[in-house]
Amino acid sequence: MLRVGFIGLGIMGLPMAKNLLKAGFEMVLFNRTRSKAAALQEMGAVVANTPADVAGLCDVVITIVTDTPDVETILLGENGILEGGHSKLIVVDMSTISPIATQKFATTLAEKGIKLLDAPVSGGDIGAQKGTLTIMVGGDKAAYETCLPIFQVLGKRITHVGPSGSGQMVKMCNQILCAVNMLAVCESLSLAKKTGLDLEAMLNVVIAGAGGSWALENLGTKIVKGELEPAFMIKLIQKDLRLVLETAQKNQLPIPATALAHQFFAALEATGEGELGTQAMIKVYERLANFKMNG
Amino acid sequence: MLRVGFIGLGIMGLPMAKNLLKAGFEMVLFNRTRSKAAALQEMGAVVANTPADVAGLCDVVITIVTDTPDVETILLGENGILEGGHSKLIVVDMSTISPIATQKFATTLAEKGIKLLDAPVSGGDIGAQKGTLTIMVGGDKAAYETCLPIFQVLGKRITHVGPSGSGQMVKMCNQILCAVNMLAVCESLSLAKKTGLDLEAMLNVVIAGAGGSWALENLGTKIVKGELEPAFMIKLIQKDLRLVLETAQKNQLPIPATALAHQFFAALEATGEGELGTQAMIKVYERLANFKMNG
Repeated sequence: MLRVGFIGLGIMGLPMAKNLLKAGFEMVLFNRTRSKAAALQEMGAVVANTPADVAGLCDVVITIVTDTPDVETILLGENGILEGGHSKLIVVDMSTISPIATQKFATTLAEKGIKLLDAPVSGGDIGAQKGTLTIMVGGDKAAYETCLPIFQVLGKRITHVGPSGSGQMVKMCNQILCAVNMLAVCESLSLAKKTGLDLEAMLNVVIAGAGGSWALENLGTKIVKGELEPAFMIKLIQKDLRLVLETAQKNQLPIPATALAHQFFAALEATGEGELGTQAMIKVYERLANFKMNG
Repeated sequence: MLRVGFIGLGIMGLPMAKNLLKAGFEMVLFNRTRSKAAALQEMGAVVANTPADVAGLCDVVITIVTDTPDVETILLGENGILEGGHSKLIVVDMSTISPIATQKFATTLAEKGIKLLDAPVSGGDIGAQKGTLTIMVGGDKAAYETCLPIFQVLGKRITHVGPSGSGQMVKMCNQILCAVNMLAVCESLSLAKKTGLDLEAMLNVVIAGAGGSWALENLGTKIVKGELEPAFMIKLIQKDLRLVLETAQKNQLPIPATALAHQFFAALEATGEGELGTQAMIKVYERLANFKMNG
C-alpha cells in the first residue's frame, strides 16, 4: 500500500487525511500549526518536521493549502518537497491555485523526476468529511492511475481531465458556474420576496424545472431560512474568482456576469462579511433595494 | 366529467389539447387560424366560432396564447369570454403574461362570477407533448381543485402558489433563473474552450458538482455539440424578460444580471437570430472574444 504524505490540515485537509488514515494508508503529516496534527497522530500518523522530510518518507504527497504562494513555498521553498523528494515521488496538489503557476511547478519538479498532479476538489467541507468530493485531475495519466486508490477514498466523481494545469482550469470553470448561479438565485428570490410570494411554494416549483440548479436547491433554501453561515466562504471564492478573471483576461475573454458576482462579493468583504457563505450575496440585493428576506 | 374549452393551438397548446382529448375530456376549441383545429376535430373535438361560444358551452376554458394583449382580447374583447361566459365558469390562463394585468382581468371577470386562474407552465414543447409540464397556479383554491384533474393530464409538478397573479410571478422568478444560469453556462464553456480544455471531460465533472444546473446539463451539452435549435426560443424569453424587468422596476428592485442576459439576447435579435434557442447566447461570447466553440 502506498505511503501517503499529507500537508495542510485545514477545514478541508483535516477530514480528508482522517479518511485516508481510516482507509488504512500509512501516513506522514506536516502542518504549519503542529497542534492540528495531534488527533491524527493518536490514530497512528507520523508527524514530520518539514515538507522535505514528508517527501523523503512517502510515495505520494498530497498538498491542500490556501493559495499559490503557499503551494510554491511547500514545493520549491527551503526544506520543501523538491529538496527532499526522490525520483519516484508523485505530488498531488489539491489546493485551488493558478493553472499557469501549476504548469511551472510541474516543470521544475520534473527536473528531479518528481511528478505533479493538480487535483482540486469541489464539494466543500461536508464533501471532505463524507468522502464525496468531486476531484478534477490534470497531469500524467500513469501517475493519476497510481493515485486512484487514494482519490477513491476522498471523493466520488473522479475524472482525469487532461495535462498539467487542466484540473485547475476545470475548477475555474466550476467557480464561474457557482458565482453566476448565485446571482440567478439572489435575483429570483429577491423578486419573489419583493412581490410577496410564498417563498417555499415558489422554491418548490422552480427547483424542479428548467431554472433548477445545485445552488438554488442547496443555497436558495438556506437564504429563505436566513442561514448565511458558510458552505463555501466568500473570501475563498473571491480568491478563486481573482484567478478566474486573471485567466480570462490573459485569454482575452470578457466574462461580465462573473465580474459582477466578484464585485458583489467584494461589497460584502467591504462590510466585514467575507467570512459568511456565498449565499450571503442576498444581502447586497437587500441593501440595494431596501428589503429583508426574513421578516 | 368537465367539459373543457381550449383557446390557442400553438406550439404548446396543440399538444396539450390533444392530451386532454386522449384523456377523455369533451372539448370545445377556438383558434384564430381555424385550420389548426382540424386534426383535433377528427379526434372528436367541437370547433366554435368565437371565444364567447366556447365560454357558453364549457365548465372550464383554458387559454394559452402569446402575450398580454392577446389574452385581454380573448377575455374582454368583442365575442370574448366575459361576453359569453356563465357564473360558474372557470378560466385557466396558461400563457405567460403580466401578473399585474392578470389581477385586473380576474377582477373584471369576477363581476360576472367568472373565476380566473393564472397557470403558466415550464418545460417547453417537449413537456407539452409528454404531459410533463411544471404548472404554477395562482387564484382561487377551490377553482384550482376543480381543475386539478385537467392539470394532472398536462403536467407532472403542479403547485398552487397563492392568490391571483402568483402563478405569473413564480414564472417570472423561473425565467430569471433560466436567463442568468445561461450566462453562467456560456462564461464557463467559453473559458474552457479558450484555454483548450476537453469540453466533454469538463462538462462531465462540473455537471455533477456545486456548479450544476438544468441549463448546464441540457443546454450546455447542446452548445458543445453545436446544436442551437430552440428548446426555448430567444424571442420568447425576451418577451418574458421584458415583463420581469418591468415588474422588478415597479418593485424598485435592480436585477443587473438578468438585465445583462436580456441585453445579450437583444444582440442576437439584432443579428436576426431571435428564433434560435436561448443557448445561442454562446454566439455573443464567440463574437466578443473572437473564437468558435466548434472547430
